[in-house]
Amino acid sequence: MLTGIIGAGALGLYYGALLQRGGNRVKFLLRRDYQAITEHGLTVKSINGDFHLSKVEGFADPAAIGPVDLVLIGLKTIANDRMVGLAAPLVGPDTAILTLQNGLGNEEILAEAFGADKVLGGVAFLCSNRGEPGTVHHLGQGKVALGEFTRGLSPRAERIASVFSAAGIPCLAVADLAKARWEKLVWNIPFNGLSALTGCDVTELLSHPPTRTLAADLMAEVIAAANAQDPTAPIDADPFTRAMIEATDAMDHYRPSMMIDRQEGRPLELEAIYGIPIKLGKEKGVSLPRVEMLHALLGMGESLKETGS
Amino acid sequence: MLTGIIGAGALGLYYGALLQRGGNRVKFLLRRDYQAITEHGLTVKSINGDFHLSKVEGFADPAAIGPVDLVLIGLKTIANDRMVGLAAPLVGPDTAILTLQNGLGNEEILAEAFGADKVLGGVAFLCSNRGEPGTVHHLGQGKVALGEFTRGLSPRAERIASVFSAAGIPCLAVADLAKARWEKLVWNIPFNGLSALTGCDVTELLSHPPTRTLAADLMAEVIAAANAQDPTAPIDADPFTRAMIEATDAMDHYRPSMMIDRQEGRPLELEAIYGIPIKLGKEKGVSLPRVEMLHALLGMGESLKETGS
Repeated sequence: MLTGIIGAGALGLYYGALLQRGGNRVKFLLRRDYQAITEHGLTVKSINGDFHLSKVEGFADPAAIGPVDLVLIGLKTIANDRMVGLAAPLVGPDTAILTLQNGLGNEEILAEAFGADKVLGGVAFLCSNRGEPGTVHHLGQGKVALGEFTRGLSPRAERIASVFSAAGIPCLAVADLAKARWEKLVWNIPFNGLSALTGCDVTELLSHPPTRTLAADLMAEVIAAANAQDPTAPIDADPFTRAMIEATDAMDHYRPSMMIDRQEGRPLELEAIYGIPIKLGKEKGVSLPRVEMLHALLGMGESLKETGS
Repeated sequence: MLTGIIGAGALGLYYGALLQRGGNRVKFLLRRDYQAITEHGLTVKSINGDFHLSKVEGFADPAAIGPVDLVLIGLKTIANDRMVGLAAPLVGPDTAILTLQNGLGNEEILAEAFGADKVLGGVAFLCSNRGEPGTVHHLGQGKVALGEFTRGLSPRAERIASVFSAAGIPCLAVADLAKARWEKLVWNIPFNGLSALTGCDVTELLSHPPTRTLAADLMAEVIAAANAQDPTAPIDADPFTRAMIEATDAMDHYRPSMMIDRQEGRPLELEAIYGIPIKLGKEKGVSLPRVEMLHALLGMGESLKETGS
């Protein structure tokens, strides 16, 4: 499966490297790592064992990549205004486009530009970050749930999932992509935002009883919004919330990506993770006062950066 | 009117100095400023004109003060566990006790210890801070609204208000002290907390549309809780909120006291300004999700300080 990677950050480099090691031809659109990777290859330092790809097809210009079987999009959502232009040269008549970006609203942009039937989305549970140019670190997890933007289990989604799984990326095709995205938001909305806002990791947030309660209250709002989107089956709020909190209790002082982004002065993916979910919830009459408040407070920090305060 | 000042911080020193200059005998319980004031007197640097009191009756031990006509309490509410012990030696059969502390729950402690009929409370709109020992700075405003803890306009409250006014402290006796306290909370709850949490002053908070909306939403929750406490007349939510926001628009980059406390690492008055108002609102069935969230987030910072993180 010829795959083109758009947005070769920590996620794109890691999954692309696994696909290539698994025998697939992979073409990477590179920016920061272009020189290092085209000259010296790509090194993966992984909890599952390190490996090095000495020959990697890296490109600075998407037009030089040309049509592929699968476009894998790992761009930060804050770069979504450039997404269609970057992906377009890779899209031929039979190309599938898979976005593994955070939050909501990404598939819609691709569907509008390329047609809904070309688009798949997935949620990635991956802990990785970039090292020096040419090196990516895989710190934990890695599984993917993917599905058609137009819903339903398709042979195409199953085929991509089996290629991923064969390459060492645990992957499941799901019929209800939107529900999978919302389920991930049930965790991301409280823990990304609260950690970015307070500078506290998940263990600190959960050890203070009022913020532990707040995390659960935020989850309840997200689940109510999720269940108002006409999912194939509703999320069962109490057990799901309990399971999410318990799973987070087991994460020893984990620092969510948005907390790290804020601490390192990078822009936050507020629209995909907060703005669009809030809008979709409110369109269905669901009130999300706490999620809106968290969005407002996080946006205050972004607004200060923009004005240089 | 022989007045004893308990809690001679910026508020107690400023109002005590004005009362003394106005011809009243004032005894100050002092701690940090004891030596400076008993040796060299008390200097007030005020926007209304500086003045110096060369002879000030300062005490290190409340027992040496003895019974007074009026005990004026300006302690930070975080020191309320010491309040009754500090005030007791000043309380005789005809003593009135007036707390000008922030938030709710202070009169109740005094009423429990000394009897409800001895207790008055007031809200002070004062911008002042302490300088070097022996000096207090008056930066703006200063008016007081005071009333009986047991409600109703009393001759005693009117008398105290006229003594204050004659001494240069603009003061009004009000029949509904609780309502006056809640009206002040309508401002304090959003702006103290949001500024302490984000490090943004009121102008920054109001210039970011989502936090401007959030401030108004917080005010609406506080007003709903206030109006559920059986006030003599309800707060008219929309015009009151609009007036508060407009008044705050006029405050040029004002930094609320809680923001300064947080920046200087001092403990915050969370129980008086958040904990008790939330409890009273919920007891009346009023939902305050945003106020509770703000309280939880502010408490997270306090909890980190306690553990030394």
